[in-house]
Parts: sequence; structure tokens; C-alpha cells
Amino acid sequence: MSIQQTAEKAKAASKLMAAVDTNTKNDALGKIAEALEANTDAITAANKEDLERAEKGNLARALLKRLKFDGDKIAGVCRGLRSLAALEDPVGKTLASTELDSGLELYKVACPLGVVGVIFESRPDALVQISSLCLKSGNGVLLKGGSEAAKTNRILADIISRVSVEAGLPDGWIGLLETREDVSAMLGLDNCVDLIVPRGSNEFVQFIMNNTNIPVLGHADGICHVYVDRQADLDMAAEITADSKCQYPAVCNAMETLLVHTDIAEQFLPAAKKALDEYGCRLKGCEKTQKIIECEPADEDDWQTEYLDYELSIKAVSRMEDAIEHINKYGSGHTDAIVSSDEAAARKFLSLVDSADVFWNASTRFSDGFRYGLGAEVGISTNKIHARGPVGLEGLLIYKWLLLGNGQTAGEYASGQRQFTHKTLGKDCPL
Amino acid sequence: MSIQQTAEKAKAASKLMAAVDTNTKNDALGKIAEALEANTDAITAANKEDLERAEKGNLARALLKRLKFDGDKIAGVCRGLRSLAALEDPVGKTLASTELDSGLELYKVACPLGVVGVIFESRPDALVQISSLCLKSGNGVLLKGGSEAAKTNRILADIISRVSVEAGLPDGWIGLLETREDVSAMLGLDNCVDLIVPRGSNEFVQFIMNNTNIPVLGHADGICHVYVDRQADLDMAAEITADSKCQYPAVCNAMETLLVHTDIAEQFLPAAKKALDEYGCRLKGCEKTQKIIECEPADEDDWQTEYLDYELSIKAVSRMEDAIEHINKYGSGHTDAIVSSDEAAARKFLSLVDSADVFWNASTRFSDGFRYGLGAEVGISTNKIHARGPVGLEGLLIYKWLLLGNGQTAGEYASGQRQFTHKTLGKDCPL
Repeated sequence: MSIQQTAEKAKAASKLMAAVDTNTKNDALGKIAEALEANTDAITAANKEDLERAEKGNLARALLKRLKFDGDKIAGVCRGLRSLAALEDPVGKTLASTELDSGLELYKVACPLGVVGVIFESRPDALVQISSLCLKSGNGVLLKGGSEAAKTNRILADIISRVSVEAGLPDGWIGLLETREDVSAMLGLDNCVDLIVPRGSNEFVQFIMNNTNIPVLGHADGICHVYVDRQADLDMAAEITADSKCQYPAVCNAMETLLVHTDIAEQFLPAAKKALDEYGCRLKGCEKTQKIIECEPADEDDWQTEYLDYELSIKAVSRMEDAIEHINKYGSGHTDAIVSSDEAAARKFLSLVDSADVFWNASTRFSDGFRYGLGAEVGISTNKIHARGPVGLEGLLIYKWLLLGNGQTAGEYASGQRQFTHKTLGKDCPL
Repeated sequence: MSIQQTAEKAKAASKLMAAVDTNTKNDALGKIAEALEANTDAITAANKEDLERAEKGNLARALLKRLKFDGDKIAGVCRGLRSLAALEDPVGKTLASTELDSGLELYKVACPLGVVGVIFESRPDALVQISSLCLKSGNGVLLKGGSEAAKTNRILADIISRVSVEAGLPDGWIGLLETREDVSAMLGLDNCVDLIVPRGSNEFVQFIMNNTNIPVLGHADGICHVYVDRQADLDMAAEITADSKCQYPAVCNAMETLLVHTDIAEQFLPAAKKALDEYGCRLKGCEKTQKIIECEPADEDDWQTEYLDYELSIKAVSRMEDAIEHINKYGSGHTDAIVSSDEAAARKFLSLVDSADVFWNASTRFSDGFRYGLGAEVGISTNKIHARGPVGLEGLLIYKWLLLGNGQTAGEYASGQRQFTHKTLGKDCPL
């Protein structure tokens, strides 16, 4: 089958997926878990082939660790499948209800998007997680995993497809893409694919965003800031600085630039440096910063660099407004924090910083679906529409308007024969 | 100023707009109304110049009527401005709240999108409505009205800009584009413009959708269907058929194709024809339909044509599933209705038809922001993400995540020193 055919099949299946009842979906999730457990040997054998090929190709140790899919990891994804089955079904939930007139009732009801294309790293557990999220939310899915995991992805997709269709899901709801050409082909299929979720490097996500008309949910980079205000608990500020930068510097919600009010810079910067030195963090500062602590000079490039490493740029600002302007100019609209004991300043920062996640007296590292309590995370979005910040299942849903009448026509209202009542009903759709 | 500069200024202003308080916004709306009333003579004089130019250019009478902006229409938009001022401020509304841990609270809070680019027909009242919706929702706006209304648009935009800035809004939040080249330039400014709302012909909207990376809210066409089921009140079905097609055929929510179950076709089609004949509606039917009533033959093209006129294609289907398949294949995902007395059939139709608006026993003509009670309508969307169907003010909003802590770091939770509580708070953000 060509990618076009795979996508058309997923589109047709997605129309049926939207109406599959909750029990059938949850039953399918349970049966997928059973089948993965029953096929542990075959899965780990396929994964072993992937691992051997990757080792020969000198894949980095950290990536090999993510590629490995053994009994423990299988048990982990099966726990995930069963807790997803236990979650409330988001499809069909009534979001709003209005009586337009007696006997004419309007309901805004959650429904799936359609077909979601997900491109993800060489981590086989991601395939199970993503496809199960799509299943639960009633979406069709096209999956493209990292090529290092090709054999593992193939057996996992085969099992999930076979078992879910046996459990009553429409054939073709899940499709596996296997090459870069497949991905390029998918990017052009805006009549079949409703949303693309790319995971991976900044360059990769940026490439996807620039090369498709399909809406993309994600973030290219994560240039996050911490601003330490003139009135702040400086011990707290040093802890938040160290945590935001160094707790796990390779991720998108780690801080890249520290902004410090000049009033407290002489007191705070030595304390911050001490905390950062413990991690061996390289420091680059503006001219004022360089006069207070030992560091390399920072230039214009540094303000727009996502180091993703133990490296930090620092800038002193004489007004909070300058910090906000810097963040809105150089930031990614991802996550930015203020450390301040002045509530009015915090309020201003929170309303003027135009980012998905804006924090007061907390580390930037909290912006994450798990930490937010969203359950499974689809991704982190710096989009301005649909879904922003950490996105859970609700990012895979939209709504439709259902109107239940008994023969009403617009003419009756246009002529004044009948009038709209427009009363909030506050009840679930009866159908 | 170049369009790029206008857009950059609007972007910068939009960051401030997000934090403008409710009173200042409502005060500005009131003062705009006063200024429009006080400048009625100058506005109608500018409009007269537009009207004279349009008459010389032989603009159609219906379009001249929309272009005309006299004292009555000014009074109308001023009533609109004052009722918008009376509406609740959607910005800053808490949409969800979660305690992540004691003293660490997460709030999902509604906020403006940023800058909205709106391209609209030669109707000066639209300029006032759109800019006031953007003002109320805290967005910057770039406006491009039909060129026939150039002089009227210029004076209206000047008044709105001057008065609102005097009332405390940031300079540059509203920008007026005046040529097609301006629009082309705007389509490339995805770093400044967050959403485009195009109003106008199908071809125009399709052109916009195909020529920008900026998200577009709208619909290109509206091929809407009514399906009359085998068990249905046929009098009701005939009334809904006539209203859906003929109450106002030039609009996107009018029906273009009637689907009829073969079991009732012989009874129903003559009744439907009688009702449609009263409007002089031209009928095109499939082979089965042609055997039952007098009509022209319909071909494949008819199923994908939006007539926007007293013209209707008719197809007989032997199963409801065929009607659903036809709708999902040929429809625009706009508005589709079933007429049936069988609740199970209606439930199936409502869940399987993948359209923004799906109706049971009601005319397709109800899909409209005013009829839905949404207040002002931004547009009708057939998008699958962000907003679907008639879109009110909420289509101009997104949300941000605000986290309020007292020094928490991710490390404390990663080490197990502290645990997340993830309790729903059910309260408004205190900041």
C-alpha cells in the first residue's frame, strides 16, 4: 500500500472510530496489553535485532538505552494501557448546552480530530503510548518511529493493529510509516491527516512546521528564562536558578537565560554562581554581569541559543519591563518564571509574558504533562491556537455541535413567528 | 509604514493589550461609540465618496446596500459596541485549577491569541464589529476591508485607533491594510500574525488557506445535506427540505444535496418537489429520483457543487450508511441534518457524520452564531482544530498556564523528597 492509500484507509477508519463505544475501546486496550505480554519473546527478539544493528552503527549509549525494549519496559507500557482504559472516555462529553427554543436544544459535544500523524524518536514505548492515546480518543493514527527501532516498531504495530481490530475497532485505524519518504508523502496529505505531532530535535520539528499545510502541534525550541526581581528571596532564587538550569539541562523546559534586576545583582549573582558552579555550569554574562562575577562575555547570539547543556547566559536589567521585553523578544513562548516577593510585580509579569507557561516562584522544570497531572502527555505546544503548553488527551479532541429539534425551520424565526430563548441548559446531550 | 512595520507594531501592542484591565477596555468601547456618533457627518461624507465611486463602477445593487453606511447603520454598530462593553471579559477567566502540591498551584487561564488578521467584504459595519471583538478579547488586529469601502474604512479605523489609544489602549493595536499587496505581505508574516480570519467568496478563502503558514479560521465552501430517513414524518421532512434549501439559498448553511431513503422516496419526493416548486427551485436527481419525479439528471459534479442558488441535487440511498458515506465524502464538514423518527438512527447519524454541525429534525439554516446564542460571530469554521462551527469571541482566545509556588524545585520531586498531590482546586487564579 502507498502512503496515500494507508492514509485514506486511516481516514475512512477514523470516521468509524468516532462512534466506537467506550467499552469496545477499553476492551481493546486491555487485549493489546495481554497480547504484548503474551508476545514478550517475539518483541524482545525483534528489539535485539534493532539493538545489534544500532550498536554496529555506534549509536550513543543514551539512545541505545531508550531503544532497548525488554520485559520491564513491556510491563511498563502494559500498566500504562490498563490505566488509560480506566480513564473516563473524553469522546461524547457535553461541553455546553443551550435551549434555542422550547424543543430545540443545542449541544457542544467533544469528538475526535480524525487522523493524527505522529513522528517520534527511536523509543518503542512511545509507539504503544501514542497509538493507545489515539485509540482512547477515537482517532486514527499514522506512526513514524525512529529508523533504529524499525523491527520493534513493526512487530508492535502489527500486534496492536491485529488485536484491536479483533476487539472491534475498524481495520486501518493505525498505519505504520517506515521511511523518510513516507513522512514527506504524509506532509502533503492535508485531505487525510488532521494534525501532525512531531517529536525530536528542534531542527526536525522546524522542518516539519515549514513543510506542511497540516496543523502541527509541538514546539521547535525552548528558550526559557528565570527573572529575579529586585524584591526577592535570594536563597529561593538561587535554588530555582540551579534547578531550572541544571536539574536536567537537555530538555526543553530547562532555563537558558537568567535575567537579574540590577538592584540585587551584586548580592545575588555570586550566590547564583556558587549554586551553578556545583554543576560545573559554564556562564556567559552581559557587561554588568561580567563586572560582578567571573564569566565569559555573552553576545546577541547567546540570547537566542538553546544550549541544552550546562551553559547559561545572564543579563542584568534595570527594570522588570526590560526583562519582560527580553523574554517576549528572544523567548520561545515556552516557559518563563519570575522570582519575586512582590505580588504586584508577579501579577504584571504573569499577564505580560506571552508564553504557554508562566511561573511565580517555581522552577521552569515543572512545565510537563505528568507534573501538571494531565495523565499521558501528547506533547508540549508553543502554538497560539488549539492547545498550548503541556498537552494531554484533550489536544486530540475537538467538538461538534449537535442540534436536536422537532421540525423547526429558520423561516419561523426570521418571520418573528417564533423567538429564540437562548437559555443555558446545563445538561448532557441525551443522544 | 510598511505592512511588516504595521504588523510588528500590532504584535508589540498585542503583548500590552493582553494585560489591559476590563474597565479600560469597556471604557474604550463606549468612547468609540460616542466618537462614531459625534462624527456621523464626516463618516457618511466619506461613505458617500465610496458609494459614488461604486455606482460609477456599476457595483451590484445588493453590494451597494451593504456598502452604504448611514446614520441608522452607525446607530446600529454603536448599540453593538455598548452591548459588547456589557459582556463579561473573557480574558483572565480561570478554566481549570489544580493543586500540584501544598503551596504549588496551577491555573489554566484564558488569554488573547495575539494579533488577528481579518479580511472582510465591503461592509463598513464589519470593520467596527471585528475591531471591537478584538479589543474586547485583548487582541491586536490587522484589518483589510473590501476596496469599495476604502474611504469609509479609513475614517472608521482612524477614529477607533485615536479614541481607543486616548482611552488607554496601546498605540498600534489596530492596523489598516489597504491593498491586495498588503494582504499578500501579511500572509507571509507568521512571526507577527497568529490567526487569519478571511471572509468572502469560496475561491478567496481557499486562496488564503493555500498561501499562508498562519492558521486560518474559516470555511471555503458549504456543501450541506439533509437526509430523510426511512422512518420520518414526511410533512416535517418537506418543510425542513424547503427551509434548508430556499429560506436563503445564497449562504453557506443552505442545503445543496437532498438524500432520500428509497423506502420512502416514492411517497416523499413528490411532496418535496411540491414544496420546492413554490420557490421555483431547479431539481437535479439521480436515476432513481428521475423515475419518481420530473427533474434533470444529476452527475458526479453535482454532488460537489455549492449552488448557492435555487438549485438542488437529489440522491436516493437504500441504507442510512450510504447517506453518511456520501456526506463524509462530498460534504464540506459544515452542516448536515437527518430527518427521522427513529432515535437510534439519529444517534448513529450524529456520531458518524464528521461535520461541525449535525442536526436531528431541524433545518441546516440554524448553524449560525446568532441563532446559537453565541453573541457576536467571528466566523464559521470547518477546521478540525481550535474552533469548529459558528465561532464567537472564544475563537479569539487561547489560554496560558500560571503556576504559583513558594520556591519549589523539580529536584525535590524527582528525588522523592516531595510528592505531587494533583487535587482539583475548583477556584479562580488569585493573581
